[in-house]
Amino acid sequence: MLCENIGTKDSHLTFAGVDTTQLAEKYGTPLYLMDEDRIRHNCRVYIKAMKKYFGESSFPAYASKAASFRRIYEIMKEEGMGIDLVSPGEIFTAKAASFPLEKSFFHGNNKTDADVEYAVNCGVGYFVADSVFELEAIERCKKNSGNKEKQKVILRLTPGIDPHTYDAVATGKVDSKFGTAIETGQAEELVSKALKMEHIDIVGYHCHVGSQVFDSEGDVYLDAAAIMLSFGAEMQKKYGVQFRIFNLGGGFGVRYTDADPCLDIEKNIAKLGEFIKEKCSELEIDVPQIIMEPGRSIVADAGMTLYSVGTVKEITGYKNYVSVDGGMTDNPRYALYGSKYTVLVANRMNEKADFTADVVGRCCESGDIIQPEVTMPKAERNDIIAVCTTGAYNYSMASNYNRIPRPPIVMISGGKDYVAVKRETFEDLIRNDV
Amino acid sequence: MLCENIGTKDSHLTFAGVDTTQLAEKYGTPLYLMDEDRIRHNCRVYIKAMKKYFGESSFPAYASKAASFRRIYEIMKEEGMGIDLVSPGEIFTAKAASFPLEKSFFHGNNKTDADVEYAVNCGVGYFVADSVFELEAIERCKKNSGNKEKQKVILRLTPGIDPHTYDAVATGKVDSKFGTAIETGQAEELVSKALKMEHIDIVGYHCHVGSQVFDSEGDVYLDAAAIMLSFGAEMQKKYGVQFRIFNLGGGFGVRYTDADPCLDIEKNIAKLGEFIKEKCSELEIDVPQIIMEPGRSIVADAGMTLYSVGTVKEITGYKNYVSVDGGMTDNPRYALYGSKYTVLVANRMNEKADFTADVVGRCCESGDIIQPEVTMPKAERNDIIAVCTTGAYNYSMASNYNRIPRPPIVMISGGKDYVAVKRETFEDLIRNDV
Repeated sequence: MLCENIGTKDSHLTFAGVDTTQLAEKYGTPLYLMDEDRIRHNCRVYIKAMKKYFGESSFPAYASKAASFRRIYEIMKEEGMGIDLVSPGEIFTAKAASFPLEKSFFHGNNKTDADVEYAVNCGVGYFVADSVFELEAIERCKKNSGNKEKQKVILRLTPGIDPHTYDAVATGKVDSKFGTAIETGQAEELVSKALKMEHIDIVGYHCHVGSQVFDSEGDVYLDAAAIMLSFGAEMQKKYGVQFRIFNLGGGFGVRYTDADPCLDIEKNIAKLGEFIKEKCSELEIDVPQIIMEPGRSIVADAGMTLYSVGTVKEITGYKNYVSVDGGMTDNPRYALYGSKYTVLVANRMNEKADFTADVVGRCCESGDIIQPEVTMPKAERNDIIAVCTTGAYNYSMASNYNRIPRPPIVMISGGKDYVAVKRETFEDLIRNDV
Repeated sequence: MLCENIGTKDSHLTFAGVDTTQLAEKYGTPLYLMDEDRIRHNCRVYIKAMKKYFGESSFPAYASKAASFRRIYEIMKEEGMGIDLVSPGEIFTAKAASFPLEKSFFHGNNKTDADVEYAVNCGVGYFVADSVFELEAIERCKKNSGNKEKQKVILRLTPGIDPHTYDAVATGKVDSKFGTAIETGQAEELVSKALKMEHIDIVGYHCHVGSQVFDSEGDVYLDAAAIMLSFGAEMQKKYGVQFRIFNLGGGFGVRYTDADPCLDIEKNIAKLGEFIKEKCSELEIDVPQIIMEPGRSIVADAGMTLYSVGTVKEITGYKNYVSVDGGMTDNPRYALYGSKYTVLVANRMNEKADFTADVVGRCCESGDIIQPEVTMPKAERNDIIAVCTTGAYNYSMASNYNRIPRPPIVMISGGKDYVAVKRETFEDLIRNDV
């Protein structure tokens, strides 16, 4: 099976040990499931490996844009994770969960003055500053408020690494809307500007090479680390800026289908740790505190979406279509990126997979496809379709296109299920209509 | 200018006669603007032409998935339009606006039993039935409720027309998740099945050739009409099913940039009307009542989105990026389809356009692009960026990705502005979090 939390019992699909058809019956469909135990397990893999190979002070910060809702921040708090936040809305949600914001990293290529003020007032630990505009906004905000404390800032830089993943998720390249380029000399310029600012405390540097990075991409993390550490060492020597924190971003790949490789996170962290130590010794700098920002690899395989089948259309001589009661509104990833998913018929797990169809959504749009050309047991109306590995970038990217209410998130922990986010109602849809 | 509701006054961009920079100041950004007068104008173009060339009983039904909120249904009601609805959420919203649902057409490739029951109970005028599963669901629902009245049903068929538009929006082909194919004999089979159902009243047929169809695509509407009318005539002769309503769907193209042609809607309707009359006379059937379902061409050019500039990044030797305070969350069309838009700097309308940049959003995602390679006057932080022709498939497709609240919709009528949909708050974002 794709992940150890997926199983079969009496021809029914189980997730986190629970019969999915019973969950579909109890909560209705479409339905997001999340396996709390798997989320905690994934956190612990990072925490343990990072402490062991990077040093005691190192920790992972959950990139919460992958799945942002109140309960997830409570879990992160309990696990001792840091968090990566990208907007005031995420800060607000983390605050609502009483997450200790001193362990948060505030990201974004375009923070408005209002965003900066909100984040400063909320006590966000670190700004991951993307440009001089942001540094100036922080400086202005601090000056206006009379707040004399310096804001800890990590500069987001582009090391010029292309991890050969899709364009839309490759962010370490020089040509990116994110960060400031080392190669062009603009990163050094940014450091020198920041040093003249009274309220800015540069504590380190951040880079993010991309998303869905597997070992086969070559050692992009090592390549990026080499460039970043050299730059940090140079800044330390030239300007006396201590390289205290090195934030390596996220990007470790996740298995969506059996064709995807299994990535050994601990092994990768071990290799990175060794490399960083060697490189620092060569550069004659102390090993900085290392932060990583996993998002997808914390929550993706902890998620599953259940749908009910509505129509099964066999167009003679053309193609078959199985339509479900959700679609691009709850999972726009195929429409956006052509993402691959593993699709199962939850109530026919012991039947032969001898029917091939496009599994499509209910939206009035031809591009509303969950997954094309799925080979599965022939489904019928009211069968339950399960899409695996939907814990990341599904709920968080969901829309109300076609005025479809967003599904609830039901968490499973120790074999018990509970609602973390309620299903949207029709009333919710028109709440802001005047 | 792209559309007559766009102008310039004292170097500021005007929309529907109002200074856009003042609206940005008054309501904040990002901000959706909608020109009520333009919406009404667009409705009247269809109403007038359809009555003139199709006959007095013909009318357009606004495809409300293009932009669905309470106020728009009130406007449609006042204009005497029909509406096309695709989900219980849209039915609910139309009901909240007291729209007379007997003039509504309920669409969707996958209506659940619950959807069917809701629509029947709400008194939806016409089901545009996509498959035999739907007919059976209507039949069951009527039987169970003891409601003896027949449900008026229009059968959605695929005439096998490919309008050469994007795959994602080409829906008239045989290979489609929508409708039932004439070519394969499955449409006739559907008619014969429907005739055996006690509570189904087949009043006609529906097809939808695609989206953004221009004259240059050839006469796809005429081709589709020929096939549909022949099929309807055949069914009339063979089974005695009166061809009372012919619903031609939507799809007329809209100008997003100056490179797009101007489509003369009246001329197209005139040509279609003439063709349909000839064809009906040739087939020896009465001319049916003609329905069209324009969505985009009713609201697209009645919309504009305003953003504030946050960062202007010039990456030496690479590219420039202008980041705004919205993005794929309020307009996912570039991310989804690579859609073209006209982008203006609202407060620099008299300045020379000599700066080329990708206009990108604030989301933590490289694919969050509003429009690449825009040539415009060089923008600075807090300048106002206007994206034209965003009235369709922007608000309706918006998400809360990155926990970004959705912008409000401000309507303009007779030079006066008013809020139709309020800005989402952070509280709205966590309303369903347990």
